[in-house]
Amino acid sequence: MEYDDGQLTEEKVFKDPVHRYIHVRDELIWKLIGTREFQRLRRIRQLGTTYVTFHGAEHTRFNHSLGVYEIMRRMVENLEKKMTWEEEERLVCLSAALLHDVGHGPFSHSFEKVFETDHEEWTRRIILGDTEINRVLLTMGDAFPKKVADVIAKTYDNKLIVSLISSQIDADRMDYLLRDAFYTGVSYGQFDMERLLRVMRPGEDQAVFKHSGMHAVEDYILSRYQMYWQVYFHPVTRSAEVILSKILNRAKALLADGYAFRLDPYHFRSLFQSTMTLEEYIRLDESIIMYYFQEWIQEKDAILRDLCGRFIDRHLFKYVECDPSEQLKIWPELKRLYNEIGLDPDYYLVIDSSSDLPYDFYRPGEKDERMPINLLMPDGSLRELSQESDIVEAISGKKRTDHKLYFPYDLLADQREYKEEKQRILELLHQQGG
Amino acid sequence: MEYDDGQLTEEKVFKDPVHRYIHVRDELIWKLIGTREFQRLRRIRQLGTTYVTFHGAEHTRFNHSLGVYEIMRRMVENLEKKMTWEEEERLVCLSAALLHDVGHGPFSHSFEKVFETDHEEWTRRIILGDTEINRVLLTMGDAFPKKVADVIAKTYDNKLIVSLISSQIDADRMDYLLRDAFYTGVSYGQFDMERLLRVMRPGEDQAVFKHSGMHAVEDYILSRYQMYWQVYFHPVTRSAEVILSKILNRAKALLADGYAFRLDPYHFRSLFQSTMTLEEYIRLDESIIMYYFQEWIQEKDAILRDLCGRFIDRHLFKYVECDPSEQLKIWPELKRLYNEIGLDPDYYLVIDSSSDLPYDFYRPGEKDERMPINLLMPDGSLRELSQESDIVEAISGKKRTDHKLYFPYDLLADQREYKEEKQRILELLHQQGG
Amino acid sequence: MEYDDGQLTEEKVFKDPVHRYIHVRDELIWKLIGTREFQRLRRIRQLGTTYVTFHGAEHTRFNHSLGVYEIMRRMVENLEKKMTWEEEERLVCLSAALLHDVGHGPFSHSFEKVFETDHEEWTRRIILGDTEINRVLLTMGDAFPKKVADVIAKTYDNKLIVSLISSQIDADRMDYLLRDAFYTGVSYGQFDMERLLRVMRPGEDQAVFKHSGMHAVEDYILSRYQMYWQVYFHPVTRSAEVILSKILNRAKALLADGYAFRLDPYHFRSLFQSTMTLEEYIRLDESIIMYYFQEWIQEKDAILRDLCGRFIDRHLFKYVECDPSEQLKIWPELKRLYNEIGLDPDYYLVIDSSSDLPYDFYRPGEKDERMPINLLMPDGSLRELSQESDIVEAISGKKRTDHKLYFPYDLLADQREYKEEKQRILELLHQQGG
Amino acid sequence: MEYDDGQLTEEKVFKDPVHRYIHVRDELIWKLIGTREFQRLRRIRQLGTTYVTFHGAEHTRFNHSLGVYEIMRRMVENLEKKMTWEEEERLVCLSAALLHDVGHGPFSHSFEKVFETDHEEWTRRIILGDTEINRVLLTMGDAFPKKVADVIAKTYDNKLIVSLISSQIDADRMDYLLRDAFYTGVSYGQFDMERLLRVMRPGEDQAVFKHSGMHAVEDYILSRYQMYWQVYFHPVTRSAEVILSKILNRAKALLADGYAFRLDPYHFRSLFQSTMTLEEYIRLDESIIMYYFQEWIQEKDAILRDLCGRFIDRHLFKYVECDPSEQLKIWPELKRLYNEIGLDPDYYLVIDSSSDLPYDFYRPGEKDERMPINLLMPDGSLRELSQESDIVEAISGKKRTDHKLYFPYDLLADQREYKEEKQRILELLHQQGG
Repeated sequence: MEYDDGQLTEEKVFKDPVHRYIHVRDELIWKLIGTREFQRLRRIRQLGTTYVTFHGAEHTRFNHSLGVYEIMRRMVENLEKKMTWEEEERLVCLSAALLHDVGHGPFSHSFEKVFETDHEEWTRRIILGDTEINRVLLTMGDAFPKKVADVIAKTYDNKLIVSLISSQIDADRMDYLLRDAFYTGVSYGQFDMERLLRVMRPGEDQAVFKHSGMHAVEDYILSRYQMYWQVYFHPVTRSAEVILSKILNRAKALLADGYAFRLDPYHFRSLFQSTMTLEEYIRLDESIIMYYFQEWIQEKDAILRDLCGRFIDRHLFKYVECDPSEQLKIWPELKRLYNEIGLDPDYYLVIDSSSDLPYDFYRPGEKDERMPINLLMPDGSLRELSQESDIVEAISGKKRTDHKLYFPYDLLADQREYKEEKQRILELLHQQGG
Repeated sequence: MEYDDGQLTEEKVFKDPVHRYIHVRDELIWKLIGTREFQRLRRIRQLGTTYVTFHGAEHTRFNHSLGVYEIMRRMVENLEKKMTWEEEERLVCLSAALLHDVGHGPFSHSFEKVFETDHEEWTRRIILGDTEINRVLLTMGDAFPKKVADVIAKTYDNKLIVSLISSQIDADRMDYLLRDAFYTGVSYGQFDMERLLRVMRPGEDQAVFKHSGMHAVEDYILSRYQMYWQVYFHPVTRSAEVILSKILNRAKALLADGYAFRLDPYHFRSLFQSTMTLEEYIRLDESIIMYYFQEWIQEKDAILRDLCGRFIDRHLFKYVECDPSEQLKIWPELKRLYNEIGLDPDYYLVIDSSSDLPYDFYRPGEKDERMPINLLMPDGSLRELSQESDIVEAISGKKRTDHKLYFPYDLLADQREYKEEKQRILELLHQQGG
Repeated sequence: MEYDDGQLTEEKVFKDPVHRYIHVRDELIWKLIGTREFQRLRRIRQLGTTYVTFHGAEHTRFNHSLGVYEIMRRMVENLEKKMTWEEEERLVCLSAALLHDVGHGPFSHSFEKVFETDHEEWTRRIILGDTEINRVLLTMGDAFPKKVADVIAKTYDNKLIVSLISSQIDADRMDYLLRDAFYTGVSYGQFDMERLLRVMRPGEDQAVFKHSGMHAVEDYILSRYQMYWQVYFHPVTRSAEVILSKILNRAKALLADGYAFRLDPYHFRSLFQSTMTLEEYIRLDESIIMYYFQEWIQEKDAILRDLCGRFIDRHLFKYVECDPSEQLKIWPELKRLYNEIGLDPDYYLVIDSSSDLPYDFYRPGEKDERMPINLLMPDGSLRELSQESDIVEAISGKKRTDHKLYFPYDLLADQREYKEEKQRILELLHQQGG
Repeated sequence: MEYDDGQLTEEKVFKDPVHRYIHVRDELIWKLIGTREFQRLRRIRQLGTTYVTFHGAEHTRFNHSLGVYEIMRRMVENLEKKMTWEEEERLVCLSAALLHDVGHGPFSHSFEKVFETDHEEWTRRIILGDTEINRVLLTMGDAFPKKVADVIAKTYDNKLIVSLISSQIDADRMDYLLRDAFYTGVSYGQFDMERLLRVMRPGEDQAVFKHSGMHAVEDYILSRYQMYWQVYFHPVTRSAEVILSKILNRAKALLADGYAFRLDPYHFRSLFQSTMTLEEYIRLDESIIMYYFQEWIQEKDAILRDLCGRFIDRHLFKYVECDPSEQLKIWPELKRLYNEIGLDPDYYLVIDSSSDLPYDFYRPGEKDERMPINLLMPDGSLRELSQESDIVEAISGKKRTDHKLYFPYDLLADQREYKEEKQRILELLHQQGG
């Protein structure tokens, strides 16, 4: 909430339920928040389809982006007590924190897979292209937008700054863990951010943490671990996501086939043809997607119609655990049976896998994302976190993967016709689920 | 969040950030939540345009409706210790609590004014008409849907039940005060609900409160008072609402004039012509409205285009305080100046008034909404709240009204043309604002 | 909690459940906290006998004093953005905030009444006398201790500083409202301190509050009002206090009479004789009082023995409401009956009155405590709070008084002897209580 | 806080900051709370010397005992939905929960070591001996007190009940983790108790947890792990405890030597001689200990005087990490140097070790405390927790030990005499600490 609307002679504040207040002292930041590209984030949910599982999780990326900015502001305030840098670096930091998600599209996760777009690329284009954001950034100098984009792309010279916004313990992750826990209402996701910021020290190529704060770091890693499995990978959320992806796939296929839509999906056409302009992309948001989905409930294509109805009315797929190697055996029979009863297995029999690596310190051959978290020891040396923490050591490098097989239980349970085949399908699935 | 998806042999729970858990033990309630008419509430925000002021307030009526149900469930659990009634009454109570808002449309407040619809009437139609909700309710007997509708309409025989859901201290208000405070992040809105429920006793025609809990009631009244002026009537929110109303007015006028829309607003057509069917109404939600607003940014009508752009990109009107009697004097000159510079005063010069009566015990000639809150004294007699509480007495019956005049400051400040007129307009406005 | 114990090159922090962290950056403050006179506050409860009613309220004045210091630190940080002053003033402020309660004795409230001591006078002596605190303060200059004492005594030149620590809205009250609400577990007592500090501005002779923050001020006043009646004046707490006072009175009388104590109460002797030295006072704490009370359970004096047993084992007096003017009528008969059954009315029939004035702006003929709270209007003028706030106006200047009559119900209910007289006493009391 | 004081026709409630309200519905429980032996717990802190590190941790065992009772009440309410038992079992459960700590003495941890007492034995004596508690329990039948004592002693027949109060996940631990986190203000210690209770099921010889609630159990185990190392084993707390133990040791030695105390320590005499009666034990509390410590500051024995002053004024020992095997090498030289400078190494050179085993499932040859936590799988089978949880597996069975060497840095740093020796001592210590 902005209490005033005038000149930035006084600090502006937004009331925020997670950080209490978000403080804006730089006109640059104030103006960036006011751009239409940033305001658009109000129309894109932070957690995609998670709201179907946790009804509290209706918050948007606007909400989160302000939070990341605020954490960065506090980080910078703390770090500046320990080091000096040019004023411009501070503004680069804050701008990058605020804008790091600005390229996200509606339901990004599914969208990117189906349309082969990349929100990071769109973020770059929004910062560097013909946009209000670019014009505001340019007021800081011609080179300024590029610097901000580089920080987000992790190619910026000052690796310390890059680490503040994308590393295994950064402003982005800190905000989303706290914020998503707040809105979903789960008790995981809590950690002592104030203490983390206080024990953070500027290192050469990344921020490090005083050894005395190790337990706060542990707590953060564990929060992350719990949030992934309790919230982010929740199977009901994934069921909604599976359906969403299949809707987009179906629409893509129909478009390619020259199917005559009742309502011309012109917003999608350029996406499917990969000719979408920056202006078109900026106008895309979740309202538009939801509008199409509602309209498509009246399409004549039975699959599109059914899937959209499922998504809108929350008639989701059910699931069984599945072992991908085992599943190979039943696949041919399942597909055959599906075809017999007139269900397209491409849309109604979906394996979805989630996997997470809660913390890692060394992954040869991979890109620099997995820089270790380093502790600053009393003698000034650095030690990698998992060498000091039993708990972190226990989970570090351990990738956990979970496979689930999603299917429309309601259609299979309604055995007024194809009774035998449907029973057999349910039997096979049940067997698979152990 | 539903942890299980099977039979209701076990209680179902939803994780809720306000009440921690929402417990569902009756299959009836579980099935009502699953209907498409109830799921639709996920696409209608609880606080309309408040999110432009308090970015945390993105929660929906789905969220709130579950909360009202949960409070009612706890109320009933407590009251049943003090009285007996038929099992059916309990289910009528719970269903009415869950469904009391089911007829709300997108941005209800503005919609109802412009289109002269009434969400209470739509609630009634959804409960009694050809809907999934009606079919689920009918499983409890032919008379059941009518009973639920009557409770919501306050015409039900059992006035105690009516008071639990709509009185000056009811499950609806309790939930929204707590919930809206939670999501906006303000510290007002807190009161000790658990204690309120514990001191609540069944009275003849309404619930009463044990005298020993008077301070908890006071606290609730004060929370309500603070929330109204701090959150619900926030001038920035009202600015967004003014623009929203003007968009709808403009679209209505254009439709009436036979204006050729780039995109046919068929969702609106029936609304404007008051021929909307139940099925059409159920399909209306905020995504659809937002879709049209985005599309209309490209319309050729300058007013519609400008207002939609303002709403989407949050370029709101500014405001000055205004005294409606004083304002009469400057009105003619203002209108003349507006016309001179080519701004239509019907759309760009808007008075908005808010008023609230935090508590009242007696309002002759008015309908029964304002039944007093009664305290149950140690000797068994009843006393009206404001006779016991100094603070409540101080604010009871005192209607407070606030008038504001909204205008597009940006257009007036840009004085590259009509400099003189615009300066004079700003002068007049400034003078008005005191 | 202090995380480090070394040099003050780094900021020290204490973990605090109310303010999250208490930050100490000045060696002066660090050293003051370490003095034995300040550590002694760990052995004096913040809320006296309140713990018998709210079992969570076991916190000490040490706890609160750190909190007041922390709020002052934040106040000063905010005010320094708006004004400049000499560094010394800042340290005077912080020291005064930390030390404002340092002269409190055990169960101050009752003690001061019975022994006619004055904690403010002891605070002054501790700051200016031969103490560790005085020696630490002297490191800032010879005049420094006197300045700190003057701020606490409200005689300091800089009235702005005085107002920060003792006015109707100061660091002391802010901390105790929040802290006492936290420890008792009540929901009253919440207000948005962060916002209050942000809208605070330095005025000429006191801090003032920006008009835009008026509702936060209102909320604070209402919290205060609720806490007084819900917590501070709770009748069960007052019952314990009544007994405590009577114990002290009895001991005083016995000492005066030359009664031979089983255990010589040498800690009390000097108190009773008003010859207590500073060193003796500093060694007095609640452990010592509790020790005597436990010992006195074995004294031969029946009254002392009984009252101490009641206090230690929480066998409190019951109460009835009482109207002091009415009560005059039954007094003679009650006393006569008491004497007949062998109960001393001086110890077993006690009227206790509480009264509070939640806010006032003008009280002719009274000392400057009641300076009004002033709002800073947009045009730079000041307006007294109750002129702007309906709610504050409603309660301002209204002194509310509550009288209760305490008596040992258990003794009167045990009617194995003096049945008639005891019944009559209970009848009279019941009649009185309405 | 008790709102009423009359008959138990209505439920009684205590306001509790951790569980919001503590509900008492059984007259038995109400009367137990009112006994002098239970009220005595108000004078014994829950966390011993922890308040010197975390100033918020001033809560008592009274506070905690009510909390354990409340959790048990909720557990029983949940379990009764899944099983039936005799009413008496419920009251045995609740009484045992309430009374499980009733035998704790002042600063139990140190006391038991020095005086070789055992709080469990005292609990048994209080429940079965000539006490108010025993008399209240006897109203439920002659065999009732013994049953309650057996549950606490873990010898009761019904092992399910035993497990609710003492197992690796019981009402006692749940309350203290939540409560101690609340009062210290740390963010560790949070877990979703409501969910734990909801997934708890009665097993044959212990409660088990539905597999779907595994993550809530994990979270509980991790909270426990963090609390141990962050709060319970905090080195500053241990420093205070080291001093406390040494005071008691010194007093014991002086008594044995026939030293003439200025104040006769008669409370201690029977303790030292192991002749303490139940009545004497019940009258012992932390006030009495603190009283002696204050008095002893004036004793002529230099060691007793110094240590008491340290404890009262919080002049603690400093510490270095220490490897007990390494330490052997420097011990002789350290002792020699200590003796040379006139410091008694028995009192001023103390090794303190803490160790914790956060979770274990199998410990051959040990008593039944370490029963595994079992998960109830969907197919009805049981699985031990660490087989399902990676994180728990990582820490299960891993005993972590921490050794620290405590010494009076202030005396050694003051090198006005024995400069050389003291420098050498500090050198040796520093070397040891790595």
